[in-house]
Amino acid sequence: MNTAYLALERHFARIASLQDAIGLLGWDKEVMMPSGAAERRSENLAMLEGLRHEILTAPIMADLLDQAEAAPARAASAETDWQRANLTAMRRQHTRATALPQDLVEAHAQATTLCEIAWRDARQNSDFKALLPALTEVLNLTRAIAAATGEACGLSPYDALLDSFDPGTRQADIDPLFTRLRAELPALTAAALETQAALPTTRAPQGPFSLPRQEALGRELMQRMGFDTTRGRLDVSLHPFCGGATHDVRLTTRYREDDFIPAMMGILHETGHALYEMGLPDAWISQPVGQSGGMTLHESQSLIMEMQFCRSAPFTRWLAPRLRAAFGVADNAPGWDAQALHRQLTHVEPGFIRVDADEVTYPAHILARYELEKALVSGDLALKDLPAAFNERIHTLLGLRVPDDRQGCLQDIHWPAGLFGYFPCYALGAMTAAQLRQAACTQEPAILPAIEQGDFAPLLEWLRTHVHGRGSSAPLRQIVLEATGAPLDADAYLTHLRTRYVDRAPNA
Amino acid sequence: MNTAYLALERHFARIASLQDAIGLLGWDKEVMMPSGAAERRSENLAMLEGLRHEILTAPIMADLLDQAEAAPARAASAETDWQRANLTAMRRQHTRATALPQDLVEAHAQATTLCEIAWRDARQNSDFKALLPALTEVLNLTRAIAAATGEACGLSPYDALLDSFDPGTRQADIDPLFTRLRAELPALTAAALETQAALPTTRAPQGPFSLPRQEALGRELMQRMGFDTTRGRLDVSLHPFCGGATHDVRLTTRYREDDFIPAMMGILHETGHALYEMGLPDAWISQPVGQSGGMTLHESQSLIMEMQFCRSAPFTRWLAPRLRAAFGVADNAPGWDAQALHRQLTHVEPGFIRVDADEVTYPAHILARYELEKALVSGDLALKDLPAAFNERIHTLLGLRVPDDRQGCLQDIHWPAGLFGYFPCYALGAMTAAQLRQAACTQEPAILPAIEQGDFAPLLEWLRTHVHGRGSSAPLRQIVLEATGAPLDADAYLTHLRTRYVDRAPNA
Repeated sequence: MNTAYLALERHFARIASLQDAIGLLGWDKEVMMPSGAAERRSENLAMLEGLRHEILTAPIMADLLDQAEAAPARAASAETDWQRANLTAMRRQHTRATALPQDLVEAHAQATTLCEIAWRDARQNSDFKALLPALTEVLNLTRAIAAATGEACGLSPYDALLDSFDPGTRQADIDPLFTRLRAELPALTAAALETQAALPTTRAPQGPFSLPRQEALGRELMQRMGFDTTRGRLDVSLHPFCGGATHDVRLTTRYREDDFIPAMMGILHETGHALYEMGLPDAWISQPVGQSGGMTLHESQSLIMEMQFCRSAPFTRWLAPRLRAAFGVADNAPGWDAQALHRQLTHVEPGFIRVDADEVTYPAHILARYELEKALVSGDLALKDLPAAFNERIHTLLGLRVPDDRQGCLQDIHWPAGLFGYFPCYALGAMTAAQLRQAACTQEPAILPAIEQGDFAPLLEWLRTHVHGRGSSAPLRQIVLEATGAPLDADAYLTHLRTRYVDRAPNA
Repeated sequence: MNTAYLALERHFARIASLQDAIGLLGWDKEVMMPSGAAERRSENLAMLEGLRHEILTAPIMADLLDQAEAAPARAASAETDWQRANLTAMRRQHTRATALPQDLVEAHAQATTLCEIAWRDARQNSDFKALLPALTEVLNLTRAIAAATGEACGLSPYDALLDSFDPGTRQADIDPLFTRLRAELPALTAAALETQAALPTTRAPQGPFSLPRQEALGRELMQRMGFDTTRGRLDVSLHPFCGGATHDVRLTTRYREDDFIPAMMGILHETGHALYEMGLPDAWISQPVGQSGGMTLHESQSLIMEMQFCRSAPFTRWLAPRLRAAFGVADNAPGWDAQALHRQLTHVEPGFIRVDADEVTYPAHILARYELEKALVSGDLALKDLPAAFNERIHTLLGLRVPDDRQGCLQDIHWPAGLFGYFPCYALGAMTAAQLRQAACTQEPAILPAIEQGDFAPLLEWLRTHVHGRGSSAPLRQIVLEATGAPLDADAYLTHLRTRYVDRAPNA
């Protein structure tokens, strides 16, 4: 490859190291840091982000990118394909970083910090009016960022926001998928509830559940799934997440004594994220092309583990005796058999809170937010009208009357944090997970029987080849097409929901 | 202050943030990091060090320093005094950083990394010959660095090395102090051993000692000493240290079930380091002048706690009943009374290993190394002759015949790590601690009675004012002079050793 390209690789390797440092210090902040260090840590993290931005936007970078792109193409090979994809990813980062004036970036960072603080009180007090001034500032600055980025990238403002979380994904890709969900989910939900009502009642396991046993169980499941403990850790934090750095993935969870299911399912979910990070192409770890391919793919990897496989009947048949052993419960203890466990893991119940929603009613929460945030960014919806519009949509989509804004439009941190364009990735991730699962089980018939034995190796191997190992070498659209033979659509997802929740098929 | 100075402050604030990041990632490496992340972490730390060096040596820095120094002096005030001292510290860092060509810095870093690895095997096998090639490379590169730095700073090569650990300290300051120790310690040691032999025997507390109880005891003692748990942590690592970042001091220790004394004394020692870091001037935390004032002052702060006060008879009178309570031992249990505890904490026994040495015989280990490393740097001693020269000096100073190099010149990592000029700081720190203790107890008579009640507040207040709060605003020499009214010498230290170990005075 030409010298300009090689110089770019060196600059981006420095950027990757800064990202590792930011990731590890971010983990430390949530897991280890003493409270009095918070202000200084914020300064340090902002400085590292500033250095990253400075390296990325240094005058020499534009010249190097131009030279590397103008260099004559070399004979195609796996190596040059990756280099070309890397150059594309470099250009994308550079274009986005240089699209914005520094004062806009800083004003946005400051506004979201203040708005997040205001949001904690506003949510607590269910007081949307108290949040309105700070949220208005965040929305105005986000719209300015969307406009400037969109202009630099040739995208509409909302697409520019989407693209920052999910490179290459456009509103035009999402609309038909979400339209279909909107059309089919209400009837599907009603049918699922009807099926559920006809089932015999089961009871849930009764606690208390010892925290050390919960932790030992979580570690055992992580390792079964393929988590490499020489390249990652499990710890405790207030809000579970998957963070850290390349070759050093830091998962967190939170335990409750009265219920082991939330921590266990949280670990299975975050392990899906971790396995993706651990499977990224080793040779490219310090380059843009070696990094994960956006929020939708990331979420698809947590959901294929947590939702598609770990809540499946085959897996619960393996899991139920393991749980009885883990908590020292008799084999015939009520609520601890595979069927009762599966019922608990697939219980459907429309509710107000997105993060507590089951698989069937979850997309409704996203549809509502997607429609609203598009209208907020375009200016079609005024912020002051958000609560009424939010509640109206939840009523239409879920048949529920939101009692207060705390359980309505104030429940999520995303908008106060300036994360407009992020919500759709959750539902796209669920659809992607369903389509990948269908393709994986068809292409590799050994996967499902192995899962029923608690063996994730065949599944992980398939994911390594078709998803993890691809890094950012292609957009979501292409990765899904090549892995499954079809463009991303809602079929597999709707089929999955019907099979598991309406038909209650024995292997769903 | 002029705009050039203010611009310098901004650049150095970025450097301070990078140092914080390096400190925290260094702590994480020893305490949290999974093994498989080691290689990547080394890359990341080297990159952060490289960025730090790049900011410090950027062409604009020389211009800014020249302009700031040439600016007309403003009216003297506390503020301008600190700014002037800060500018001096900035210039010092810049001169040292620009003195060395980048390839020399990199060659030295690579040579020490390889030599440290070779040293682990060589020590294990007591095989100095196996280390000789790698150590020769390190010494040659260290001599090149000493020569180049010395030329830039107007110092002899060995002074240039000393100055890197202890700004402002020169061989000419050390020689008379060490000459005096060399003259007086042999007789003092003999007298101490004679006194000790005449004392009735006592027995040591018998284990096992529960690790959670040891940890709870350590935390209680740290907090009594003034460690702010909202600005620091205690964890476990293979080699105890005090690291972390500004406002976030990370201590580590290591517990043994058969003996609680090493972990407890280690915590007291590291807490001394931590209190110094926590007491640095808040307003200057992100500037060179706000950082700690070199290795001798740092070591003096750990030793004034561990050696001067925590092994004193008054403190052991308070500590003994606390220990019995901590481990649930009867008040009359043999070995757990204050006298037996004090005897154990002040036991004298010449030995081969520096880090295991008592207060009386410790300086001999340093005198030997100081003389040898001066001769190695000047070229008067060839490396191949080091083992014989080392053993000869240990025999002269301690009367011991070194049985093998593992217990001789291979025991310490310092020289393989390229740390020539570091050893004297340990003995200087012990002398400084003794002189500070004497001055503190004279100026503030409430200190010793408080220590006897387990109350460190009066001592800490004195140290905050006279040492911690001064940061790097003056060299060691001046800080000691202003705090104690006299230049640093060996009097207080020799008096301390005589009083405690020869006279066995009741309050020593």
